[in-house]
Amino acid sequence: MKKVAVIMGSDSDLPVVEGAFGIFEKFGVSYDVFILSAHRTPDEVRALASSAREGGYGVLIAAAGMAAHLAGAVAAVTTLPVIGIPVKSGPFEGLDALLSTVQMPSGIPVATVAVNGAKNAAILATEILSVTDEGLARGLEEYRREGAEAVLKKNEEIGGKYR
Amino acid sequence: MKKVAVIMGSDSDLPVVEGAFGIFEKFGVSYDVFILSAHRTPDEVRALASSAREGGYGVLIAAAGMAAHLAGAVAAVTTLPVIGIPVKSGPFEGLDALLSTVQMPSGIPVATVAVNGAKNAAILATEILSVTDEGLARGLEEYRREGAEAVLKKNEEIGGKYR
Amino acid sequence: MKKVAVIMGSDSDLPVVEGAFGIFEKFGVSYDVFILSAHRTPDEVRALASSAREGGYGVLIAAAGMAAHLAGAVAAVTTLPVIGIPVKSGPFEGLDALLSTVQMPSGIPVATVAVNGAKNAAILATEILSVTDEGLARGLEEYRREGAEAVLKKNEEIGGKYR
Amino acid sequence: MKKVAVIMGSDSDLPVVEGAFGIFEKFGVSYDVFILSAHRTPDEVRALASSAREGGYGVLIAAAGMAAHLAGAVAAVTTLPVIGIPVKSGPFEGLDALLSTVQMPSGIPVATVAVNGAKNAAILATEILSVTDEGLARGLEEYRREGAEAVLKKNEEIGGKYR
Amino acid sequence: MKKVAVIMGSDSDLPVVEGAFGIFEKFGVSYDVFILSAHRTPDEVRALASSAREGGYGVLIAAAGMAAHLAGAVAAVTTLPVIGIPVKSGPFEGLDALLSTVQMPSGIPVATVAVNGAKNAAILATEILSVTDEGLARGLEEYRREGAEAVLKKNEEIGGKYR
Amino acid sequence: MKKVAVIMGSDSDLPVVEGAFGIFEKFGVSYDVFILSAHRTPDEVRALASSAREGGYGVLIAAAGMAAHLAGAVAAVTTLPVIGIPVKSGPFEGLDALLSTVQMPSGIPVATVAVNGAKNAAILATEILSVTDEGLARGLEEYRREGAEAVLKKNEEIGGKYR
Amino acid sequence: MKKVAVIMGSDSDLPVVEGAFGIFEKFGVSYDVFILSAHRTPDEVRALASSAREGGYGVLIAAAGMAAHLAGAVAAVTTLPVIGIPVKSGPFEGLDALLSTVQMPSGIPVATVAVNGAKNAAILATEILSVTDEGLARGLEEYRREGAEAVLKKNEEIGGKYR
Amino acid sequence: MKKVAVIMGSDSDLPVVEGAFGIFEKFGVSYDVFILSAHRTPDEVRALASSAREGGYGVLIAAAGMAAHLAGAVAAVTTLPVIGIPVKSGPFEGLDALLSTVQMPSGIPVATVAVNGAKNAAILATEILSVTDEGLARGLEEYRREGAEAVLKKNEEIGGKYR
Repeated sequence: MKKVAVIMGSDSDLPVVEGAFGIFEKFGVSYDVFILSAHRTPDEVRALASSAREGGYGVLIAAAGMAAHLAGAVAAVTTLPVIGIPVKSGPFEGLDALLSTVQMPSGIPVATVAVNGAKNAAILATEILSVTDEGLARGLEEYRREGAEAVLKKNEEIGGKYR
Repeated sequence: MKKVAVIMGSDSDLPVVEGAFGIFEKFGVSYDVFILSAHRTPDEVRALASSAREGGYGVLIAAAGMAAHLAGAVAAVTTLPVIGIPVKSGPFEGLDALLSTVQMPSGIPVATVAVNGAKNAAILATEILSVTDEGLARGLEEYRREGAEAVLKKNEEIGGKYR
Repeated sequence: MKKVAVIMGSDSDLPVVEGAFGIFEKFGVSYDVFILSAHRTPDEVRALASSAREGGYGVLIAAAGMAAHLAGAVAAVTTLPVIGIPVKSGPFEGLDALLSTVQMPSGIPVATVAVNGAKNAAILATEILSVTDEGLARGLEEYRREGAEAVLKKNEEIGGKYR
Repeated sequence: MKKVAVIMGSDSDLPVVEGAFGIFEKFGVSYDVFILSAHRTPDEVRALASSAREGGYGVLIAAAGMAAHLAGAVAAVTTLPVIGIPVKSGPFEGLDALLSTVQMPSGIPVATVAVNGAKNAAILATEILSVTDEGLARGLEEYRREGAEAVLKKNEEIGGKYR
Repeated sequence: MKKVAVIMGSDSDLPVVEGAFGIFEKFGVSYDVFILSAHRTPDEVRALASSAREGGYGVLIAAAGMAAHLAGAVAAVTTLPVIGIPVKSGPFEGLDALLSTVQMPSGIPVATVAVNGAKNAAILATEILSVTDEGLARGLEEYRREGAEAVLKKNEEIGGKYR
Repeated sequence: MKKVAVIMGSDSDLPVVEGAFGIFEKFGVSYDVFILSAHRTPDEVRALASSAREGGYGVLIAAAGMAAHLAGAVAAVTTLPVIGIPVKSGPFEGLDALLSTVQMPSGIPVATVAVNGAKNAAILATEILSVTDEGLARGLEEYRREGAEAVLKKNEEIGGKYR
Repeated sequence: MKKVAVIMGSDSDLPVVEGAFGIFEKFGVSYDVFILSAHRTPDEVRALASSAREGGYGVLIAAAGMAAHLAGAVAAVTTLPVIGIPVKSGPFEGLDALLSTVQMPSGIPVATVAVNGAKNAAILATEILSVTDEGLARGLEEYRREGAEAVLKKNEEIGGKYR
Repeated sequence: MKKVAVIMGSDSDLPVVEGAFGIFEKFGVSYDVFILSAHRTPDEVRALASSAREGGYGVLIAAAGMAAHLAGAVAAVTTLPVIGIPVKSGPFEGLDALLSTVQMPSGIPVATVAVNGAKNAAILATEILSVTDEGLARGLEEYRREGAEAVLKKNEEIGGKYR
């Protein structure tokens, strides 16, 4: 199975990005984690992303805040799908990061998830790998069922409490 | 190769969504087009999306404006990757559609592209299919090279004009 | 008298939604409370909403945050009035939920109240039931009088304090 | 059957508000139309709204732009449900009107629809009247079916065109 | 000298509005304070504002949050200058109150100050009264000189500390 | 009677600002018009504003777009009331001008009206002068009556048309 | 004298960027113009920017719209001052480009001017070169005087027209 | 070497502005610090800025919040480059300060950095001085290398921790 590369622009993004790791472990998806900045270490970002396909990666996830150029810088040098996580930081609470991540010019898409949506980024990466992997597909369906059951259990509890 | 399902909430979205079709044709990706509304035809949206994997689809693209629930409604009933295109319409110029599409709750991601970014949605879908398809990967890399060359050609022209 | 169904997308919305319950109890309006997610339990949302009229409900209230699709998903399958409460959560403080709830496409309205406006949602539901219920109408008028008197009492107190 | 009062703040709002009239005529709902301004004719707004229930009205619809106080001024003096239509006008394209209409203080709700959503305001008013009127309920369900069929017809057409 | 009427929509606005009182006391401007809500006590707002000129008031100040209609409701029934203070409250931090206060329709102005700008509202009211009152004009000029000197004193202190 | 000084930052603001002139002529208020820029002619802005009180002015109106500093620059050097008109221009449609005009720091208020609200600025200036001028007060009341009658006339017309 | 490099992300930005050229010609500043995209031609952007200082450039100007990463990508590989011009394009009218350009992380500044502010970018570049160039300094001061005189001339004309 | 003047509108901005001082000390750039307000001490702002070039300054930095006019007021009276730091304060978290600082009219640029971006303002000032100062250029390049190494060190640490 292809691996996932998770890149964050700064170690201050780690508390957000960590939300992704449990998902990968749940589904048995291999992943590597990098701290690389589009602005401070552009060469290393480029080296990692441009060789990602041959390096066995299938999806890249990039998380950054403020003028969040990381996902776009990654997407510029790979044709693998790139998922962008806008990170909430600074006075605009992630609106700047969201717009910097999602409003990519024609030709270079970034698959953007919600602000701080690291868990969903990992699920999306798993869904991408599941397109040709029946085991992952089954795992995702089971995960959905569990999610539904958790909601329904709370519904029953509250039904008892308030009705 | 897996197919792509392109769903739009209204035929008024067609001028935007059509930007995707040329990309699919360029890369030889099979696609089907649907007009189905999350609010007016919820049953048909559900039927299509929940059977998409067994129907041979690998990616679903959903385009909608304003309170754009379509991509989320699709994502709720499939574990395939779902790409959301927020469509610019109404007084908020697509900001409502962007937030309605990207700010999905934990567990159900939508891979959101730029407002009216139909072409990028198609490229992203192709990138997703390329993870396990070397031919598509080569096609995407060639497409990138063409994009770079088009920019460099314009750079030369302007260099001649202004310097 | 018709009942009111109060649906929230997650039990994390409960501290907000609880603001509605006291109103219903004050006016003697019967209500049922559900935790059901448009994205995690779409079938149950659909089952509840599509049978609401025959189930004795007169109004449905749906509360959700972020890409708040719940009220729209409910409204798509009932012709009863649906009141949407955008819940403040995440980095955009409910602006995403407000736009996702209020900017519904033509044909499927959601009666939207203020962000976190659970109490007003309950008053609005009571007003709707009061259209053909004189007792509720009298109760609402009495409640308004009490509200006015509470303001005027504070006005008198401050008049003594500052003038 | 109770009537609906449609109030707009200025005759410049008429092209927007007219979207409501066809709906009322389709469903056989009686309605009266008023041009009254919360700021220029506060007495007349007050007189109309405070006597609306005894005047045979069941729902009031108020449409206004910019600092749209009309729906709130109406809601302040009636306990009938009040539907607010934020009208797009001026440089903020209705965002000011939306916030002025929906962010009502606790105790005085306004059922807000989308910016310029006159048609949905009329449907919502009809839904409110349908709570105790089976004929209207059947009419609304038929209208939903027609809406779904219109979408499905376009879906078939496009299926033929692009597939 | 004419008096100033200070009206707030709720006693929860008092911590903000109190910023005005010290200014009035400094300049010897008489003022009265009222808690009156545009929505809960519209009659009392109307009675106060419509008789303000004959009651000896020269300026009215209205403070309210969220869908802040109070200043507009006051301005609708007096031709005295009305100063609006948008109060920060709720999820939009006063943006809703600012737009609801400042975006008044043609014919009925509200002199809007910054969000939570109670002190400036009081200075503005004093400036208005100073147009025909030389004593107030001198007081305001003295106050400006004191403000400048306070800044210059801090400038000297920091100059010593950092240069 | 005191005069009004109307200052605009650029002659491109004239089509907006002209809305004020008819009001002054209607009420017989003397006014002078200036084109002076806070950034291009700071000396002249300062000279005009700092001598305004002794020059017979009672109110100053300043209109500017984008980073609209003009009203603040005027207010910094006079203790007369300063009315700011944020002018709609550039990509943000006057939101930048509104915030630059209204969000003044403590000590230096600007009485801000709606974006492009030149007519209301003139009415507000007249209201300020009316505090000690009974003739202007009567004129303003008459003007309000005319405004109300114009609305009521349109209400009658539409009542005939739709009822 | 050092040269200025003007880089735009797409030839569609040329009508905006051209505003800079007349300024450079007026002040006799040498400049070169490039069309290079941060996402489509990252290598060429890097090659140009990283060798800019040794190539005789003193300032770089980068213009881009939407998720405007160009100025940041340039700034990442040079220690020369980089001026960013956010270009208005797409549904958000340049707000996305402004935030993507100005909200740079600590360590890598971009000197951002107004949306579409190409002329000001050129003046700023000239100001930067003027720090150690008395001729440019005199030229800029003369230009300011001309700007002031143009305003004062219009002020005289309008003074004749309206007073 | 030319000096840098750092001006802030209020001593409450000092905790933000202090971020600049360490940078200047690191690079051996001389700087002076002033607390001067565009609105409370316009004469002193003018005196400082208009004599800055002859006083040995090469760059001016101005920091202010809310309706942040300081950088513009400085730029209006000097032709040296002026860097604006929008300071986060008040309910809009610096959005007002950003727009007031960056959206300058044609002719008078302000080089705007991120909200609260004092450190980047100091780096930008150093970059400007480095255009004709090889020592500063080498210092900046060394600083960039250190920044890159710090990121790469964290990347190695996390690589050890998570892979």
